[in-house]
Formats: sequence, C-alpha cells, structure tokens
Amino acid sequence: MEVVISNAPFNRAAALALRQAIFVTERGIPRDVEFDDRDTADRVYVNLYQDASHPVATLRLEPQSPQEMRFGRVCTRQDLRGQGLGSRLLTAAEDWSREHGYTTGVIHGEVSAQGFYEHCGYVIADGPFDEDGAPVVILHKPLISK
Amino acid sequence: MEVVISNAPFNRAAALALRQAIFVTERGIPRDVEFDDRDTADRVYVNLYQDASHPVATLRLEPQSPQEMRFGRVCTRQDLRGQGLGSRLLTAAEDWSREHGYTTGVIHGEVSAQGFYEHCGYVIADGPFDEDGAPVVILHKPLISK
Repeated sequence: MEVVISNAPFNRAAALALRQAIFVTERGIPRDVEFDDRDTADRVYVNLYQDASHPVATLRLEPQSPQEMRFGRVCTRQDLRGQGLGSRLLTAAEDWSREHGYTTGVIHGEVSAQGFYEHCGYVIADGPFDEDGAPVVILHKPLISK
Repeated sequence: MEVVISNAPFNRAAALALRQAIFVTERGIPRDVEFDDRDTADRVYVNLYQDASHPVATLRLEPQSPQEMRFGRVCTRQDLRGQGLGSRLLTAAEDWSREHGYTTGVIHGEVSAQGFYEHCGYVIADGPFDEDGAPVVILHKPLISK
C-alpha cells in the first residue's frame, strides 16, 4: 500500500475515478452534484494505492481556515471495504494536516457512516442536516500533537 | 446512449475515470505519463454515456491549429468493445470539430488500432514512431462538410 498526498494530475485523476465509480455509478449521486468546481489544479488529495496502477481509497483536503481542515469526499473501493483502509486513509490525512498546522479535523459524514467516524475519534458537533439530499452530521476531532 | 461534449467538471471526471481504468489499471501505462498537464479546466472532452451515471467511452479534443483537431486519449470501456462505440464517439468528435471550423482530424494511433482508424476513414500520414513507449502512426482524415 502506498499513500500519495499531492495535487499531481495523476493523483487527482485517481481521486475522480474512485468518486465516479463509488458516488456516481454505485450510489447514484447526480454527476453534476458530485463533481463541483472545487477539483481545481491546486487541490490536494489523499489517496491510498494498492500499487501504482490501482487506487483504492481517496479523500479531498478542504481547508476551512488556517486551523480547520475538512476531509471531504471520503470513499473506498466497494470490494475492499471493511479492511481498515478508510481508517488508514483518514489517519494519513490527519497526520498531514497536523504537520501543516491544522488543529481540528472536520467531516460532514453521512449518518450511515457516523459509527465509523466515531470509531476514528470524531465527535458530533452538529446535525443531522440535509446536504445534497442525504442526512449528514458534522463531526470534529482535535488534531493533537503526537 | 448520450454524447456529452463539454469542459464541465463531471465530464472531465468521467474522462479521467475511464482513462484510469483503461490506460493505467488495464494497460499498465505509468500514471504520471497518462495524466499529463493538459487536463485543464478549459479542456473539452467528448464522452459517451450509457446513462448519466455510466460513462463508457471518451476522447480529448486537442486543437493543433485553427484548422487541425487532434483526437487524443481515445478509449472504450473494456467490456463494451466491439460494439461500434468507438466509431460513434469519433463521429461525434468529428461533427463537433467540423462545426467549429476544423478541416482535418488527426490521430496518433497505436499500431494495434490502425485498422480501426482506417475503417473510420483515416489515412496514415507518418510513422510508425515510438511515443511514450508504444509504436504509433499518425493518421489524418479530412473533415469535409456534409
């Protein structure tokens, strides 16, 4: 397994490919909702690769302020869920954010994934709300120096 | 089947997702060769969709001059080849290019796909050359007004 955290074109392509497969094709989220205007050339993605040609999990780094980092568009390839990849991905994103001065991690998680995020140390700060047609909760986690 | 010709974020995501699956995962082309710096926000892709959540074929419009349009990164989903989708995609790209004033279509095709392009009306102009590690021929087709 390899973690790549960058805005390289190949890393963005891998992120978009996973989101196309998972959010649009598998889950039926409308393509023009899933793909907003924030996948810009300077956007940094955290991706997990089985090997260089097989991306398996992704998330998008969305700074909310110099202190607060939101982890967005989190997903893992369908056939590889339940093996701790999501948790590994999130840990890599948290480590990177901490090293870059962020003190809080924020997730707008679907209610169905709430248990997973709580397991990862997140606490509900608000919600549930309706966001893009699905109920979501807002969760926070302090990024304390290790 | 739906053809979408645009630089909308969702259309770019679909193009990158197909290329990730076909060129990188299936064919083993290095990810940083496949994903160059030309998938910019203003890039127009020609994509074929089975329905809104299932893109099946893609190509990238790469203007070489006001007269010459190159069709790049042409591919069709593995399980749907041999059904004429590539030819349908190429025709849509040629029609769009003709309507936008282009008079010649150009393809750098792998030698293994030469027969397909010849069937679509392309004629070898040069090659074969080595390009990104594979032998390619350069093919031209006049885009004559219908």
